[in-house]
Amino acid sequence: MSSKHITAAMLIIGNEVLSGRTQDKNLAFVGNALGEIGIDMKEVRIVADEEDEIIGAVNALREKYTYVFTSGGIGPTHDDITADCIAAAFGVKLEMHPLATQLLEAHYEAQGIEFNAARARMARIPQGASLIDNPVSTAPGFRIGNVHVMAGVPKIMQAMMENILPTLEGGEKLASVTITAQVPEGSIAEAMEELQSQHPEVNIGLYPFYGADGAGVSVVARGRDLRALAKVKEAVETQFTAMGMALIERPPPHEMLKG
Amino acid sequence: MSSKHITAAMLIIGNEVLSGRTQDKNLAFVGNALGEIGIDMKEVRIVADEEDEIIGAVNALREKYTYVFTSGGIGPTHDDITADCIAAAFGVKLEMHPLATQLLEAHYEAQGIEFNAARARMARIPQGASLIDNPVSTAPGFRIGNVHVMAGVPKIMQAMMENILPTLEGGEKLASVTITAQVPEGSIAEAMEELQSQHPEVNIGLYPFYGADGAGVSVVARGRDLRALAKVKEAVETQFTAMGMALIERPPPHEMLKG
Repeated sequence: MSSKHITAAMLIIGNEVLSGRTQDKNLAFVGNALGEIGIDMKEVRIVADEEDEIIGAVNALREKYTYVFTSGGIGPTHDDITADCIAAAFGVKLEMHPLATQLLEAHYEAQGIEFNAARARMARIPQGASLIDNPVSTAPGFRIGNVHVMAGVPKIMQAMMENILPTLEGGEKLASVTITAQVPEGSIAEAMEELQSQHPEVNIGLYPFYGADGAGVSVVARGRDLRALAKVKEAVETQFTAMGMALIERPPPHEMLKG
Repeated sequence: MSSKHITAAMLIIGNEVLSGRTQDKNLAFVGNALGEIGIDMKEVRIVADEEDEIIGAVNALREKYTYVFTSGGIGPTHDDITADCIAAAFGVKLEMHPLATQLLEAHYEAQGIEFNAARARMARIPQGASLIDNPVSTAPGFRIGNVHVMAGVPKIMQAMMENILPTLEGGEKLASVTITAQVPEGSIAEAMEELQSQHPEVNIGLYPFYGADGAGVSVVARGRDLRALAKVKEAVETQFTAMGMALIERPPPHEMLKG
């Protein structure tokens, strides 16, 4: 890789995701949005609403990756403990933030809803953090060091992420090509391994699927060298054609994971 | 908690999940299935198809939790490196397993498909591991120590999980009640915090949602003490009723995460 490699990790906070009751939708949004600006999502952790777990994970991830994004646990209720944990992880105080307080007060006043002690909790921001605007429901996220703390509700998380993106240093975008055919992955495995060894600068992944017409595979080649990527694409297409396999223009939805 | 606390972690292996291209569906299945037999999913990590990352995560998780479940990376292609990594994590050799080899050979012979070197890779099992049956596509998963290694394709992963479940030591099942009303979570936050402090043996979580009728909240109480759970349920219902808020019988789908 010629250019600077910029990495990210995500920390999803919430018992409901772990128990299988709630399906996370935030990772897909964040992973795609970062990919568009050349930042590679390298690791995700999902932890319970427990102080030690959140602090431990934040500290491990912020040490290892360029950026960290968290979702969940910044609402007004007693089980929203993310801000407390982030402050503890950075060893700073959690304080009432004047601007956040003002924004929330005005927001609830305009709606005729009481700005009570629970709602005021959402103005508690770690010392030294900057606010992330929340155009949906006002209660802000915040950024401290390389850690971006966002809400868990997808609509709010997405709006916050849109505000964060312009502030990030992007990298060279990873380009990808996908070639799909109705052939079992085991039939092209050796050829693809050979191809991978010829093009170490390209990452070649094989993703099997099982459709109405039997087993098939999508070969996904990713890299930053467009010429090498074009060569790999051509080689894969030549391989499929030599086997008498027609290419499938629209690959099936990527609902399967690796073999 | 009176009975033994049995915990689990999941390790999802795959670049495609991290990039946001593929939506993981395995966590929800595993989390729910374990919850049914009283095993608490405590942590999930998603890592790339990279040796160091997989080995590091497996070793961290198997040390900390009763059981570990992995999905992805046990197919026939060069980017399927999970078996190699698990062997390295346990410091044992990866060997051709006689029964796995025999099963795969017979499977491909019956279909008239060549049992080539790539397909033989799927018979490589860490020394000392036992096989996990794969009724969908034959290539087995395996268990070594407290780690269960499964395929990433959801249909295969689910079949493997069904075979694993009877071999696990379950705990006392966590019961839960959900009470939903069309009220913003900030309006009941203080009452719920008070209720939580009165019932430390119950875990009370608040999950906001935004529907056509505005903001609402589901209060989810979880615990192993059914009497305490019933008391919490009654208290929450009384609280909502006192606020003049009708309970919603069918809560909206849990698509949101924590505030």
